[in-house]
Amino acid sequence: MSAPTAAAPLGVFDSGIGGLTVARALFERLPKESVIYFGDTARVPYGPKSPETVRRYSAEILAYLLKRGVKAVVVACNTSTAHALGHLQEHSPVPVVGVIEPGARAAVAATKTGTIGVIGTAGTIASGAYERAIKKLRPDARVHAQACPLFVPLVEEGWFDHAATELIAREYLGPLTQAGVDVLVLGCTHYPLLKPLLARVMGQGVTLVDSAEETAKAVAAELETRHLLSSGGSHDHLFVVSDDEPHFRKVGARFLGGKIKQVEVVPL
Amino acid sequence: MSAPTAAAPLGVFDSGIGGLTVARALFERLPKESVIYFGDTARVPYGPKSPETVRRYSAEILAYLLKRGVKAVVVACNTSTAHALGHLQEHSPVPVVGVIEPGARAAVAATKTGTIGVIGTAGTIASGAYERAIKKLRPDARVHAQACPLFVPLVEEGWFDHAATELIAREYLGPLTQAGVDVLVLGCTHYPLLKPLLARVMGQGVTLVDSAEETAKAVAAELETRHLLSSGGSHDHLFVVSDDEPHFRKVGARFLGGKIKQVEVVPL
Repeated sequence: MSAPTAAAPLGVFDSGIGGLTVARALFERLPKESVIYFGDTARVPYGPKSPETVRRYSAEILAYLLKRGVKAVVVACNTSTAHALGHLQEHSPVPVVGVIEPGARAAVAATKTGTIGVIGTAGTIASGAYERAIKKLRPDARVHAQACPLFVPLVEEGWFDHAATELIAREYLGPLTQAGVDVLVLGCTHYPLLKPLLARVMGQGVTLVDSAEETAKAVAAELETRHLLSSGGSHDHLFVVSDDEPHFRKVGARFLGGKIKQVEVVPL
Repeated sequence: MSAPTAAAPLGVFDSGIGGLTVARALFERLPKESVIYFGDTARVPYGPKSPETVRRYSAEILAYLLKRGVKAVVVACNTSTAHALGHLQEHSPVPVVGVIEPGARAAVAATKTGTIGVIGTAGTIASGAYERAIKKLRPDARVHAQACPLFVPLVEEGWFDHAATELIAREYLGPLTQAGVDVLVLGCTHYPLLKPLLARVMGQGVTLVDSAEETAKAVAAELETRHLLSSGGSHDHLFVVSDDEPHFRKVGARFLGGKIKQVEVVPL
Protein backbone atom coordinates (compact mmCIF):
# COMPACT_ATOMS: atom_id res chain seq x y z
CA MET A 1 0.00 0.00 0.00
CA SER A 2 1.41 3.42 -0.93
CA ALA A 3 1.84 6.25 1.61
CA PRO A 4 -1.29 8.30 2.33
CA THR A 5 -1.65 11.73 0.70
CA ALA A 6 -3.11 14.94 2.12
CA ALA A 7 -5.85 14.96 -0.53
CA ALA A 8 -7.22 11.59 0.65
CA PRO A 9 -10.34 11.47 2.88
CA LEU A 10 -10.44 10.86 6.62
CA GLY A 11 -12.09 7.62 7.73
CA VAL A 12 -14.36 7.72 10.78
CA PHE A 13 -16.20 4.73 12.18
CA ASP A 14 -18.61 3.83 14.93
CA SER A 15 -20.90 0.96 15.89
CA GLY A 16 -23.82 3.07 14.62
CA ILE A 17 -24.91 6.67 14.77
CA GLY A 18 -23.19 7.81 17.97
CA GLY A 19 -19.93 8.61 16.16
CA LEU A 20 -21.75 11.31 14.21
CA THR A 21 -21.11 13.60 17.20
CA VAL A 22 -17.39 13.04 16.48
CA ALA A 23 -17.91 13.58 12.74
CA ARG A 24 -19.69 16.85 13.56
CA ALA A 25 -16.79 18.02 15.74
CA LEU A 26 -14.37 17.11 12.90
CA PHE A 27 -16.44 19.05 10.31
CA GLU A 28 -16.29 22.09 12.58
CA ARG A 29 -12.58 21.91 13.40
CA LEU A 30 -11.35 20.68 9.99
CA PRO A 31 -13.77 22.12 7.41
CA LYS A 32 -11.46 21.38 4.46
CA GLU A 33 -11.34 17.61 5.07
CA SER A 34 -13.47 15.04 3.27
CA VAL A 35 -14.83 12.33 5.57
CA ILE A 36 -15.98 8.77 4.93
CA TYR A 37 -18.14 7.76 7.89
CA PHE A 38 -18.89 4.08 8.48
CA GLY A 39 -21.71 3.15 10.90
CA ASP A 40 -22.01 -0.55 11.67
CA THR A 41 -25.80 -0.37 11.93
CA ALA A 42 -26.21 -4.11 11.28
CA ARG A 43 -24.23 -4.99 14.40
CA VAL A 44 -24.92 -2.08 16.76
CA PRO A 45 -24.50 -1.93 19.77
CA TYR A 46 -20.89 -2.87 20.55
CA GLY A 47 -21.30 -2.03 24.27
CA PRO A 48 -22.48 -5.44 25.50
CA LYS A 49 -20.31 -7.51 23.11
CA SER A 50 -17.13 -9.36 24.06
CA PRO A 51 -13.70 -7.75 23.44
CA GLU A 52 -12.87 -10.41 20.82
CA THR A 53 -16.02 -9.71 18.80
CA VAL A 54 -15.53 -5.92 19.00
CA ARG A 55 -11.92 -6.39 17.84
CA ARG A 56 -12.98 -8.56 14.91
CA TYR A 57 -15.69 -6.13 13.76
CA SER A 58 -13.36 -3.13 14.13
CA ALA A 59 -10.64 -4.83 12.06
CA GLU A 60 -13.17 -5.53 9.29
CA ILE A 61 -14.16 -1.86 9.19
CA LEU A 62 -10.53 -0.70 9.21
CA ALA A 63 -9.85 -2.97 6.20
CA TYR A 64 -12.87 -1.51 4.40
CA LEU A 65 -11.80 2.10 5.06
CA LEU A 66 -8.22 1.39 3.94
CA LYS A 67 -9.60 -0.07 0.72
CA ARG A 68 -11.41 3.25 0.23
CA GLY A 69 -8.03 5.02 0.43
CA VAL A 70 -8.31 6.98 3.70
CA LYS A 71 -5.27 8.87 5.03
CA ALA A 72 -6.15 8.36 8.70
CA VAL A 73 -8.82 6.57 10.74
CA VAL A 74 -10.77 7.94 13.70
CA VAL A 75 -12.28 5.29 15.97
CA ALA A 76 -15.34 7.29 17.04
CA CYS A 77 -16.64 4.54 19.31
CA ASN A 78 -15.61 4.25 22.93
CA THR A 79 -16.16 0.49 23.13
CA SER A 80 -14.13 -0.09 19.99
CA THR A 81 -11.37 2.23 21.20
CA ALA A 82 -11.31 0.41 24.54
CA HIS A 83 -11.03 -3.08 23.05
CA ALA A 84 -9.42 -2.63 19.64
CA LEU A 85 -7.34 0.57 19.32
CA GLY A 86 -3.94 -1.06 19.97
CA HIS A 87 -4.76 -3.92 17.61
CA LEU A 88 -5.86 -1.52 14.84
CA GLN A 89 -2.78 0.70 15.27
CA GLU A 90 -0.51 -2.34 14.93
CA HIS A 91 -2.21 -3.42 11.70
CA SER A 92 -2.75 -0.04 10.02
CA PRO A 93 -0.37 1.69 7.57
CA VAL A 94 -2.13 5.03 8.35
CA PRO A 95 -2.56 6.76 11.74
CA VAL A 96 -5.46 5.55 13.92
CA VAL A 97 -6.86 7.88 16.60
CA GLY A 98 -9.30 6.79 19.31
CA VAL A 99 -11.70 8.75 21.54
CA ILE A 100 -10.45 7.72 24.97
CA GLU A 101 -6.97 9.26 25.28
CA PRO A 102 -8.15 12.77 24.20
CA GLY A 103 -11.02 12.63 26.71
CA ALA A 104 -8.69 11.45 29.48
CA ARG A 105 -6.22 14.26 28.69
CA ALA A 106 -8.95 16.92 28.86
CA ALA A 107 -10.25 15.48 32.15
CA VAL A 108 -6.81 15.61 33.75
CA ALA A 109 -6.36 19.20 32.52
CA ALA A 110 -9.74 20.25 33.93
CA THR A 111 -9.75 18.62 37.38
CA LYS A 112 -8.73 20.64 40.41
CA THR A 113 -9.31 17.98 43.06
CA GLY A 114 -8.04 14.97 41.08
CA THR A 115 -11.40 13.22 41.56
CA ILE A 116 -12.79 12.37 38.12
CA GLY A 117 -16.05 10.69 37.11
CA VAL A 118 -16.40 8.63 33.93
CA ILE A 119 -19.67 7.38 32.45
CA GLY A 120 -20.10 5.02 29.48
CA THR A 121 -21.61 1.77 28.21
CA ALA A 122 -21.19 -1.47 30.15
CA GLY A 123 -18.40 -2.54 27.78
CA THR A 124 -16.41 0.69 28.01
CA ILE A 125 -16.63 0.86 31.80
CA ALA A 126 -15.83 -2.85 32.29
CA SER A 127 -12.72 -2.42 30.11
CA GLY A 128 -11.26 0.11 32.57
CA ALA A 129 -9.76 1.95 29.57
CA TYR A 130 -10.57 5.49 30.75
CA GLU A 131 -9.25 4.79 34.22
CA ARG A 132 -5.98 3.46 32.79
CA ALA A 133 -5.63 6.43 30.40
CA ILE A 134 -6.29 8.94 33.20
CA LYS A 135 -3.90 7.28 35.67
CA LYS A 136 -1.16 7.16 33.05
CA LEU A 137 -1.36 10.96 32.89
CA ARG A 138 -1.98 11.52 36.60
CA PRO A 139 -1.19 8.46 38.75
CA ASP A 140 -2.75 9.92 41.93
CA ALA A 141 -6.15 10.62 40.30
CA ARG A 142 -9.20 9.02 41.89
CA VAL A 143 -11.46 7.72 39.11
CA HIS A 144 -15.12 6.84 39.72
CA ALA A 145 -16.57 4.95 36.76
CA GLN A 146 -20.25 4.24 36.23
CA ALA A 147 -21.94 2.23 33.47
CA CYS A 148 -25.17 3.89 32.25
CA PRO A 149 -26.76 1.29 29.92
CA LEU A 150 -30.10 3.12 29.67
CA PHE A 151 -28.66 6.40 28.35
CA VAL A 152 -28.15 5.17 24.77
CA PRO A 153 -31.74 3.93 24.31
CA LEU A 154 -33.06 7.11 26.00
CA VAL A 155 -31.07 9.28 23.56
CA GLU A 156 -32.20 7.19 20.60
CA GLU A 157 -35.80 7.63 21.80
CA GLY A 158 -35.16 11.39 21.78
CA TRP A 159 -35.95 11.74 25.50
CA PHE A 160 -33.15 14.26 26.14
CA ASP A 161 -35.05 16.07 28.86
CA HIS A 162 -37.76 13.64 29.97
CA ALA A 163 -38.67 13.16 33.65
CA ALA A 164 -37.77 9.46 33.35
CA THR A 165 -34.34 10.36 31.96
CA GLU A 166 -33.71 12.68 34.89
CA LEU A 167 -34.83 10.01 37.38
CA ILE A 168 -32.50 7.49 35.79
CA ALA A 169 -29.62 9.99 35.60
CA ARG A 170 -30.00 10.81 39.30
CA GLU A 171 -29.80 7.11 40.13
CA TYR A 172 -26.73 6.48 37.94
CA LEU A 173 -24.88 9.68 38.89
CA GLY A 174 -25.73 9.76 42.61
CA PRO A 175 -22.59 7.82 43.61
CA LEU A 176 -20.39 10.15 41.51
CA THR A 177 -21.84 13.27 43.11
CA GLN A 178 -21.36 11.70 46.56
CA ALA A 179 -17.74 10.88 45.67
CA GLY A 180 -17.19 14.59 44.97
CA VAL A 181 -15.99 14.43 41.35
CA ASP A 182 -15.27 17.84 39.81
CA VAL A 183 -15.04 16.54 36.23
CA LEU A 184 -17.36 14.15 34.42
CA VAL A 185 -16.11 12.49 31.22
CA LEU A 186 -18.93 11.65 28.79
CA GLY A 187 -17.37 8.37 27.70
CA CYS A 188 -19.97 7.50 25.05
CA THR A 189 -20.64 9.40 21.85
CA HIS A 190 -24.39 9.44 22.53
CA TYR A 191 -24.04 11.37 25.76
CA PRO A 192 -23.33 14.89 24.44
CA LEU A 193 -27.05 15.04 23.56
CA LEU A 194 -27.81 14.72 27.29
CA LYS A 195 -25.40 17.54 28.25
CA PRO A 196 -27.98 20.07 29.59
CA LEU A 197 -29.68 17.41 31.73
CA LEU A 198 -26.36 15.95 32.96
CA ALA A 199 -25.08 19.45 33.83
CA ARG A 200 -28.23 20.06 35.87
CA VAL A 201 -28.00 16.70 37.67
CA MET A 202 -24.28 17.06 38.45
CA GLY A 203 -24.68 20.67 39.56
CA GLN A 204 -22.41 23.70 39.24
CA GLY A 205 -18.72 23.18 39.79
CA VAL A 206 -18.57 19.96 37.77
CA THR A 207 -16.96 20.27 34.32
CA LEU A 208 -18.35 18.00 31.59
CA VAL A 209 -15.72 16.68 29.15
CA ASP A 210 -17.00 15.94 25.66
CA SER A 211 -14.73 13.31 24.06
CA ALA A 212 -15.95 14.19 20.56
CA GLU A 213 -14.49 17.73 20.68
CA GLU A 214 -11.27 16.55 22.28
CA THR A 215 -10.84 13.85 19.64
CA ALA A 216 -11.27 16.36 16.81
CA LYS A 217 -8.43 18.43 18.35
CA ALA A 218 -6.21 15.33 18.55
CA VAL A 219 -6.93 14.42 14.92
CA ALA A 220 -6.05 17.94 13.76
CA ALA A 221 -2.73 17.76 15.62
CA GLU A 222 -1.92 14.31 14.21
CA LEU A 223 -2.62 15.37 10.62
CA GLU A 224 -0.52 18.50 11.05
CA THR A 225 2.45 16.58 12.46
CA ARG A 226 2.33 14.16 9.52
CA HIS A 227 1.80 16.89 6.92
CA LEU A 228 -1.52 15.33 5.98
CA LEU A 229 -3.81 18.36 6.40
CA SER A 230 -5.92 18.93 3.31
CA SER A 231 -4.93 22.09 1.43
CA GLY A 232 -8.57 22.77 0.65
CA GLY A 233 -10.41 22.78 -2.64
CA SER A 234 -13.58 20.78 -2.83
CA HIS A 235 -14.51 18.40 -0.03
CA ASP A 236 -17.16 15.75 0.11
CA HIS A 237 -18.61 13.63 2.90
CA LEU A 238 -19.89 10.12 2.48
CA PHE A 239 -21.93 8.06 4.95
CA VAL A 240 -21.78 4.27 4.73
CA VAL A 241 -23.83 1.85 6.86
CA SER A 242 -23.81 -1.95 7.12
CA ASP A 243 -27.61 -2.09 7.29
CA ASP A 244 -30.08 0.24 5.65
CA GLU A 245 -32.60 1.07 8.31
CA PRO A 246 -34.52 4.35 8.55
CA HIS A 247 -33.13 4.99 12.04
CA PHE A 248 -29.71 6.16 10.83
CA ARG A 249 -31.08 8.98 8.71
CA LYS A 250 -33.84 9.94 11.14
CA VAL A 251 -31.99 9.91 14.45
CA GLY A 252 -28.60 10.63 12.88
CA ALA A 253 -29.66 14.11 11.82
CA ARG A 254 -29.98 15.05 15.50
CA PHE A 255 -26.44 13.88 16.16
CA LEU A 256 -24.94 15.61 13.14
CA GLY A 257 -26.97 18.78 13.55
CA GLY A 258 -28.15 18.62 9.94
CA LYS A 259 -29.57 16.31 7.31
CA ILE A 260 -27.70 13.22 6.12
CA LYS A 261 -28.05 13.25 2.36
CA GLN A 262 -26.11 10.43 0.74
CA VAL A 263 -26.06 7.01 2.46
CA GLU A 264 -24.36 3.99 0.91
CA VAL A 265 -25.07 0.46 2.17
CA VAL A 266 -22.16 -1.99 2.46
CA PRO A 267 -22.87 -5.20 4.41
CA LEU A 268 -19.53 -6.35 5.86
CA MET B 1 -31.91 -34.75 4.50
CA SER B 2 -33.77 -37.64 6.14
CA ALA B 3 -37.14 -37.18 7.88
CA PRO B 4 -36.97 -35.96 11.49
CA THR B 5 -37.40 -38.48 14.32
CA ALA B 6 -39.19 -38.07 17.64
CA ALA B 7 -35.95 -38.67 19.52
CA ALA B 8 -34.29 -35.63 17.95
CA PRO B 9 -34.03 -32.34 19.89
CA LEU B 10 -36.17 -29.24 19.44
CA GLY B 11 -34.37 -26.16 18.09
CA VAL B 12 -35.24 -22.79 19.62
CA PHE B 13 -33.64 -19.51 18.62
CA ASP B 14 -33.74 -15.85 19.50
CA SER B 15 -31.67 -12.72 18.90
CA GLY B 16 -30.32 -13.09 22.42
CA ILE B 17 -31.64 -14.00 25.85
CA GLY B 18 -35.31 -13.00 25.45
CA GLY B 19 -36.27 -16.35 23.91
CA LEU B 20 -35.35 -18.04 27.17
CA THR B 21 -38.86 -17.17 28.39
CA VAL B 22 -40.11 -19.34 25.50
CA ALA B 23 -37.60 -22.09 26.33
CA ARG B 24 -38.83 -22.01 29.92
CA ALA B 25 -42.47 -22.38 28.80
CA LEU B 26 -41.40 -25.31 26.57
CA PHE B 27 -39.55 -27.02 29.44
CA GLU B 28 -42.69 -26.74 31.57
CA ARG B 29 -45.14 -27.93 28.93
CA LEU B 30 -42.91 -30.56 27.26
CA PRO B 31 -40.62 -31.88 30.01
CA LYS B 32 -39.52 -34.91 27.97
CA GLU B 33 -38.08 -32.89 25.10
CA SER B 34 -34.41 -32.01 24.63
CA VAL B 35 -33.82 -28.43 23.50
CA ILE B 36 -30.97 -26.77 21.62
CA TYR B 37 -31.26 -23.03 22.25
CA PHE B 38 -29.39 -20.60 20.02
CA GLY B 39 -29.00 -16.98 21.16
CA ASP B 40 -27.47 -14.62 18.59
CA THR B 41 -25.70 -12.59 21.27
CA ALA B 42 -23.15 -11.22 18.78
CA ARG B 43 -25.86 -9.52 16.74
CA VAL B 44 -28.53 -8.69 19.32
CA PRO B 45 -30.85 -6.74 19.07
CA TYR B 46 -32.86 -7.58 15.95
CA GLY B 47 -35.56 -4.99 16.76
CA PRO B 48 -34.03 -1.98 15.00
CA LYS B 49 -32.55 -3.96 12.06
CA SER B 50 -33.95 -4.07 8.53
CA PRO B 51 -36.22 -6.97 7.44
CA GLU B 52 -33.55 -8.19 4.96
CA THR B 53 -30.86 -8.38 7.63
CA VAL B 54 -33.16 -10.13 10.11
CA ARG B 55 -34.11 -12.63 7.38
CA ARG B 56 -30.46 -13.32 6.52
CA TYR B 57 -29.47 -13.84 10.18
CA SER B 58 -32.50 -16.07 10.84
CA ALA B 59 -31.73 -18.25 7.80
CA GLU B 60 -28.14 -18.71 9.03
CA ILE B 61 -29.40 -19.88 12.42
CA LEU B 62 -31.98 -22.23 10.86
CA ALA B 63 -29.18 -23.81 8.78
CA TYR B 64 -27.08 -24.25 11.92
CA LEU B 65 -29.94 -25.87 13.88
CA LEU B 66 -30.76 -28.22 10.98
CA LYS B 67 -27.10 -29.28 10.89
CA ARG B 68 -27.51 -30.17 14.58
CA GLY B 69 -30.38 -32.50 13.61
CA VAL B 70 -33.39 -30.79 15.19
CA LYS B 71 -36.89 -32.18 14.52
CA ALA B 72 -38.62 -28.78 14.65
CA VAL B 73 -37.62 -25.13 15.08
CA VAL B 74 -39.23 -22.54 17.34
CA VAL B 75 -38.60 -18.93 16.33
CA ALA B 76 -38.68 -17.46 19.83
CA CYS B 77 -38.09 -13.91 18.62
CA ASN B 78 -40.93 -11.62 17.63
CA THR B 79 -38.87 -9.54 15.20
CA SER B 80 -37.56 -12.65 13.49
CA THR B 81 -41.05 -14.17 13.32
CA ALA B 82 -42.38 -10.91 11.86
CA HIS B 83 -39.77 -10.65 9.14
CA ALA B 84 -38.58 -14.19 8.46
CA LEU B 85 -41.13 -16.89 9.44
CA GLY B 86 -42.58 -17.43 5.94
CA HIS B 87 -39.10 -17.51 4.42
CA LEU B 88 -37.87 -20.04 7.00
CA GLN B 89 -40.94 -22.27 6.59
CA GLU B 90 -40.40 -22.36 2.81
CA HIS B 91 -36.77 -23.43 3.20
CA SER B 92 -37.07 -25.87 6.10
CA PRO B 93 -37.59 -29.64 5.86
CA VAL B 94 -38.87 -29.63 9.48
CA PRO B 95 -41.78 -27.65 10.99
CA VAL B 96 -41.05 -24.04 12.00
CA VAL B 97 -43.27 -22.36 14.61
CA GLY B 98 -43.22 -18.61 15.37
CA VAL B 99 -44.40 -16.60 18.38
CA ILE B 100 -46.85 -14.24 16.71
CA GLU B 101 -49.73 -16.45 15.52
CA PRO B 102 -50.13 -18.19 18.93
CA GLY B 103 -50.20 -14.81 20.70
CA ALA B 104 -52.73 -13.41 18.21
CA ARG B 105 -54.94 -16.49 18.65
CA ALA B 106 -54.95 -16.14 22.44
CA ALA B 107 -55.72 -12.40 22.20
CA VAL B 108 -58.72 -13.01 19.95
CA ALA B 109 -59.97 -15.72 22.32
CA ALA B 110 -59.62 -13.43 25.35
CA THR B 111 -61.09 -10.14 24.09
CA LYS B 112 -64.69 -9.31 24.82
CA THR B 113 -64.81 -5.87 23.19
CA GLY B 114 -62.64 -6.65 20.14
CA THR B 115 -60.25 -3.84 21.08
CA ILE B 116 -56.76 -5.31 21.45
CA GLY B 117 -53.48 -3.67 22.40
CA VAL B 118 -50.09 -4.96 21.19
CA ILE B 119 -46.69 -3.85 22.47
CA GLY B 120 -43.27 -4.81 21.08
CA THR B 121 -39.95 -3.56 19.70
CA ALA B 122 -39.84 -0.91 16.98
CA GLY B 123 -39.23 -3.63 14.36
CA THR B 124 -42.10 -5.88 15.42
CA ILE B 125 -44.61 -3.03 15.60
CA ALA B 126 -43.48 -1.44 12.31
CA SER B 127 -43.90 -4.83 10.60
CA GLY B 128 -47.64 -4.86 11.45
CA ALA B 129 -47.37 -8.64 11.87
CA TYR B 130 -49.54 -8.90 15.01
CA GLU B 131 -52.22 -6.68 13.53
CA ARG B 132 -52.36 -8.85 10.39
CA ALA B 133 -52.46 -12.08 12.41
CA ILE B 134 -55.24 -10.77 14.66
CA LYS B 135 -57.35 -9.43 11.76
CA LYS B 136 -57.01 -12.72 9.91
CA LEU B 137 -58.72 -14.39 12.88
CA ARG B 138 -61.17 -11.56 13.61
CA PRO B 139 -61.48 -9.03 10.78
CA ASP B 140 -63.50 -6.51 12.84
CA ALA B 141 -60.93 -6.31 15.66
CA ARG B 142 -59.52 -2.88 16.50
CA VAL B 143 -55.78 -3.22 17.11
CA HIS B 144 -53.75 -0.53 18.88
CA ALA B 145 -50.02 -1.16 18.51
CA GLN B 146 -47.31 0.63 20.46
CA ALA B 147 -43.53 0.31 20.16
CA CYS B 148 -41.81 0.32 23.58
CA PRO B 149 -38.07 0.53 22.76
CA LEU B 150 -37.01 1.24 26.37
CA PHE B 151 -38.58 -1.90 27.86
CA VAL B 152 -35.84 -4.28 26.69
CA PRO B 153 -32.95 -2.25 28.18
CA LEU B 154 -34.99 -1.73 31.38
CA VAL B 155 -35.53 -5.50 31.71
CA GLU B 156 -31.87 -6.20 30.98
CA GLU B 157 -30.95 -3.68 33.68
CA GLY B 158 -33.19 -5.67 36.04
CA TRP B 159 -35.44 -2.66 36.77
CA PHE B 160 -38.65 -4.70 36.74
CA ASP B 161 -40.37 -2.52 39.31
CA HIS B 162 -38.43 0.75 39.30
CA ALA B 163 -40.14 4.15 39.49
CA ALA B 164 -38.54 5.09 36.14
CA THR B 165 -39.94 1.92 34.53
CA GLU B 166 -43.41 2.77 35.77
CA LEU B 167 -43.13 6.36 34.49
CA ILE B 168 -42.03 5.08 31.08
CA ALA B 169 -44.74 2.39 31.02
CA ARG B 170 -47.43 4.98 31.81
CA GLU B 171 -46.21 7.12 28.90
CA TYR B 172 -46.10 4.20 26.43
CA LEU B 173 -49.35 2.57 27.56
CA GLY B 174 -51.44 5.73 28.10
CA PRO B 175 -52.83 5.73 24.54
CA LEU B 176 -53.78 2.03 24.82
CA THR B 177 -55.64 2.60 28.10
CA GLN B 178 -57.42 5.57 26.54
CA ALA B 179 -58.38 3.45 23.51
CA GLY B 180 -60.07 1.03 25.93
CA VAL B 181 -58.21 -2.18 25.07
CA ASP B 182 -59.32 -5.19 27.15
CA VAL B 183 -56.39 -7.40 26.10
CA LEU B 184 -52.69 -6.52 25.92
CA VAL B 185 -50.38 -8.80 23.91
CA LEU B 186 -46.81 -8.81 25.23
CA GLY B 187 -45.25 -8.98 21.77
CA CYS B 188 -41.64 -9.25 22.92
CA THR B 189 -40.09 -12.11 24.86
CA HIS B 190 -38.54 -9.72 27.38
CA TYR B 191 -41.86 -8.33 28.51
CA PRO B 192 -43.16 -11.23 30.67
CA LEU B 193 -40.64 -10.06 33.28
CA LEU B 194 -42.56 -6.76 33.50
CA LYS B 195 -45.93 -8.51 33.96
CA PRO B 196 -46.73 -7.31 37.52
CA LEU B 197 -45.89 -3.69 36.63
CA LEU B 198 -47.77 -3.83 33.31
CA ALA B 199 -50.82 -5.36 35.01
CA ARG B 200 -50.80 -2.51 37.55
CA VAL B 201 -50.42 0.18 34.88
CA MET B 202 -53.14 -1.28 32.63
CA GLY B 203 -55.50 -1.83 35.55
CA GLN B 204 -58.04 -4.55 36.28
CA GLY B 205 -60.16 -5.79 33.42
CA VAL B 206 -57.23 -5.96 30.97
CA THR B 207 -55.96 -9.48 30.19
CA LEU B 208 -52.22 -9.80 29.50
CA VAL B 209 -51.34 -12.37 26.81
CA ASP B 210 -47.93 -13.99 27.19
CA SER B 211 -46.75 -15.17 23.75
CA ALA B 212 -44.20 -17.55 25.30
CA GLU B 213 -46.87 -19.73 26.94
CA GLU B 214 -49.09 -19.67 23.86
CA THR B 215 -46.17 -20.66 21.64
CA ALA B 216 -45.33 -23.65 23.85
CA LYS B 217 -48.94 -24.85 23.46
CA ALA B 218 -48.72 -24.47 19.67
CA VAL B 219 -45.43 -26.42 19.55
CA ALA B 220 -46.93 -29.26 21.60
CA ALA B 221 -49.89 -29.47 19.20
CA GLU B 222 -47.61 -29.41 16.13
CA LEU B 223 -45.38 -32.20 17.45
CA GLU B 224 -48.39 -34.31 18.37
CA THR B 225 -49.96 -33.93 14.91
CA ARG B 226 -46.71 -35.01 13.25
CA HIS B 227 -46.07 -37.86 15.71
CA LEU B 228 -42.85 -36.19 16.78
CA LEU B 229 -43.42 -36.03 20.55
CA SER B 230 -40.50 -37.52 22.47
CA SER B 231 -41.39 -40.79 24.17
CA GLY B 232 -39.25 -39.83 27.15
CA GLY B 233 -36.07 -41.32 28.46
CA SER B 234 -33.19 -38.98 29.10
CA HIS B 235 -33.37 -35.40 27.91
CA ASP B 236 -30.66 -32.80 27.70
CA HIS B 237 -30.68 -29.05 27.04
CA LEU B 238 -27.90 -27.19 25.30
CA PHE B 239 -27.40 -23.43 25.08
CA VAL B 240 -25.41 -22.01 22.17
CA VAL B 241 -24.49 -18.33 21.69
CA SER B 242 -22.75 -16.49 18.87
CA ASP B 243 -20.74 -14.37 21.29
CA ASP B 244 -19.49 -15.35 24.71
CA GLU B 245 -20.32 -12.45 26.97
CA PRO B 246 -21.11 -12.74 30.69
CA HIS B 247 -24.52 -11.13 30.17
CA PHE B 248 -26.17 -14.27 28.74
CA ARG B 249 -25.45 -16.38 31.82
CA LYS B 250 -26.08 -13.60 34.33
CA VAL B 251 -29.26 -12.06 32.99
CA GLY B 252 -30.41 -15.25 31.27
CA ALA B 253 -30.87 -17.03 34.60
CA ARG B 254 -33.65 -14.55 35.43
CA PHE B 255 -35.43 -15.35 32.18
CA LEU B 256 -35.08 -19.09 32.51
CA GLY B 257 -35.87 -19.16 36.21
CA GLY B 258 -32.74 -21.17 36.95
CA LYS B 259 -29.02 -21.43 36.28
CA ILE B 260 -27.69 -21.88 32.74
CA LYS B 261 -25.00 -24.49 33.08
CA GLN B 262 -23.53 -25.45 29.73
CA VAL B 263 -22.96 -22.71 27.12
CA GLU B 264 -21.30 -23.41 23.78
CA VAL B 265 -19.96 -20.57 21.60
CA VAL B 266 -20.49 -20.78 17.84
CA PRO B 267 -19.77 -17.56 15.88
CA LEU B 268 -21.98 -17.69 12.76
